[in-house]
Amino acid sequence: MTPPAPPGRVWAHVGQPFEPAAYDVLVIGAGRMGSAAALFLRQLAPEARLLLIEEGGLPNEDGATILAPGVWTLAGLPEAHHAAAHWTREAAQTLGDVSWQARPHVTLHPTPGLGRLPVEEALREHPQSLALLDPAALPWAEVDPQAATYRPGSLALRTAQQAVALGADLLLNTRAALCGGGEVQLERLTVTNTHQIVTHETHRQGAPTVILATGADAPHHAEHALGVHTRHARAYRQMPHLAAPSNDTSPVLRAAGLTLRPQHGAYTLIPPLHWRDPHGYQPAGGQLTGVPTGLRRETLEDLVAQMDELPVLASEALHMGRSLSDVPGAWLALPGGTPAGRPTFEPLDDHTWLLLGGPQADTLGLHTAYKLASTLAQTLGGQTAAL
Amino acid sequence: MTPPAPPGRVWAHVGQPFEPAAYDVLVIGAGRMGSAAALFLRQLAPEARLLLIEEGGLPNEDGATILAPGVWTLAGLPEAHHAAAHWTREAAQTLGDVSWQARPHVTLHPTPGLGRLPVEEALREHPQSLALLDPAALPWAEVDPQAATYRPGSLALRTAQQAVALGADLLLNTRAALCGGGEVQLERLTVTNTHQIVTHETHRQGAPTVILATGADAPHHAEHALGVHTRHARAYRQMPHLAAPSNDTSPVLRAAGLTLRPQHGAYTLIPPLHWRDPHGYQPAGGQLTGVPTGLRRETLEDLVAQMDELPVLASEALHMGRSLSDVPGAWLALPGGTPAGRPTFEPLDDHTWLLLGGPQADTLGLHTAYKLASTLAQTLGGQTAAL
Repeated sequence: MTPPAPPGRVWAHVGQPFEPAAYDVLVIGAGRMGSAAALFLRQLAPEARLLLIEEGGLPNEDGATILAPGVWTLAGLPEAHHAAAHWTREAAQTLGDVSWQARPHVTLHPTPGLGRLPVEEALREHPQSLALLDPAALPWAEVDPQAATYRPGSLALRTAQQAVALGADLLLNTRAALCGGGEVQLERLTVTNTHQIVTHETHRQGAPTVILATGADAPHHAEHALGVHTRHARAYRQMPHLAAPSNDTSPVLRAAGLTLRPQHGAYTLIPPLHWRDPHGYQPAGGQLTGVPTGLRRETLEDLVAQMDELPVLASEALHMGRSLSDVPGAWLALPGGTPAGRPTFEPLDDHTWLLLGGPQADTLGLHTAYKLASTLAQTLGGQTAAL
Repeated sequence: MTPPAPPGRVWAHVGQPFEPAAYDVLVIGAGRMGSAAALFLRQLAPEARLLLIEEGGLPNEDGATILAPGVWTLAGLPEAHHAAAHWTREAAQTLGDVSWQARPHVTLHPTPGLGRLPVEEALREHPQSLALLDPAALPWAEVDPQAATYRPGSLALRTAQQAVALGADLLLNTRAALCGGGEVQLERLTVTNTHQIVTHETHRQGAPTVILATGADAPHHAEHALGVHTRHARAYRQMPHLAAPSNDTSPVLRAAGLTLRPQHGAYTLIPPLHWRDPHGYQPAGGQLTGVPTGLRRETLEDLVAQMDELPVLASEALHMGRSLSDVPGAWLALPGGTPAGRPTFEPLDDHTWLLLGGPQADTLGLHTAYKLASTLAQTLGGQTAAL
């Protein structure tokens, strides 16, 4: 039996000297997908020397997951993916504190159908939830009793910590640009006295295997740097706050694609995504009959269309803001170019793999990262594990 | 029997003095929808004094229809709308020269289905058309033998001319802004020696009935000026040129939502619309693995995805341009906010009606304009006609 590897090194700031070294794998992006790929590679291919690179000051400092509300549910998921969802659920819960909270997921419908209960029955124990909707407009409900909420940001952090504990090196505050041929240009960033982010030093680091896991930016980065065109796209999703009371057992509610996720004693709204945003689109606040809002127009219209079914949306509880920065939002990768895309990975060239989470990363992401790690472990001389 | 009304007046330039007068109806926008509403109102309510206002120098000088390729077909149209389509077809053909050309419309499919023929059979008399596609990838075809192509730009012009011949007044080179209460601010435009468009004079013109028919801009105009929120949206559609040979009998081809419209001995491509463009989107040329193109990225990706089925798209015949201005394109209204929206009209306030064409205006537009005219004729004291 080989002794456990010593913990990896962490470079948090430019005061800590970094020199390129021999690595077998570089992982760009310590969001939940990249961090999980790093952890699983440490587990499956412990001989492989691995460097995890993150532009922010902590795994998941920037980007979407720090804001992401995180809902695990089987609702709307085809049966063929249930095993992967359960795998992700188990893995997320064993990774330490990710604020995992079991709560039912209740999909609300205007019409009856297979597996639907009267909404009053489904929400009998949750009068606060029932008060948000009009039972005459949404009289039917479908319950996923296994659902849960958690914090994808904590998941990224815990996963990266455990990857380091198992011997992965972690380079923070560093921007990485693909150069082709397994080469990566590293820019170590620092902050000046006037709060500008500047490049302190650059390095060239190579490795036989590079995993690109920078989320919504990754497909563009791949195309720009490697000339590899993919069908992946992105959309800018805003998640406004709804000041209606919730508690630790309040169910997640979904109606017409809109998810109401209990969070911090209130709700975070996760609006539906209908389509990719076009190339060149700059997110902009909307206007509703002349009044500027921080919510983009399309999201606003979707919410307005649901005000009869969910009267709480027509109240002051909905925080629409006055400008874009008032409403939390982030670019989200759309694997395959559609909002229905599931987490996926694919080779970009002889050295580089693209790893994408997207809208269903909460439910399926860790399993996809594990599949990539398992695929790579075969060539890295590690074990392969049955999924 | 009342004698026919004398022809209306036409103000083409600011040298011709215009004074606000008593009108019963103002129609803003002399595209095909507004011009048709004006013509049908002259027919159905000849007592009603009508002013048609156009920002360009001719009916349809600017905007989408001058570029629009124009395809009339029943393909994909639910049965319930066939009567309206046939009505539109009859009306368009009787309005004078609109370059009407009967041609089959052939929808290509990868799989067999009801009413589908082998593609070689469907295109037996059109070897030039068959050469554009890979019969192994698209072996099945559905033929609409009644289809035709025409010029919506000519339709707008002929319709406006006949409206004037029947007594409608026409005010060209004039921008109209709704002020509410049936009042409209008119800006008569002229061009300076340095080719700048400037406002020469403004007038205030009122009427009990105002029809807003300015196409993709109309919903925004309505909301901005009247505070009336609608669900209508818009999308920027580019129609690139395909330098493959066609003739006067070549069928219109459609595959995966892309229409190839024979025009000028070659083809105009009409790409599918998947969704509205977001508020604030500025059309931008795309890049494909670093090479700038005039085609927007989303359209480019759709065409790339079809290159196996339609190898001609992978050839130099496709004009992608280098910047946005190289590719003809225009904003298109999406009635109801979706690409499937059909032409429609609706009251905005006590005086103002919105009239929208959109993606199916070629097949259904004139009928919708007639329905609006017929609705209005009842209150204007004219005849009502059965549709």
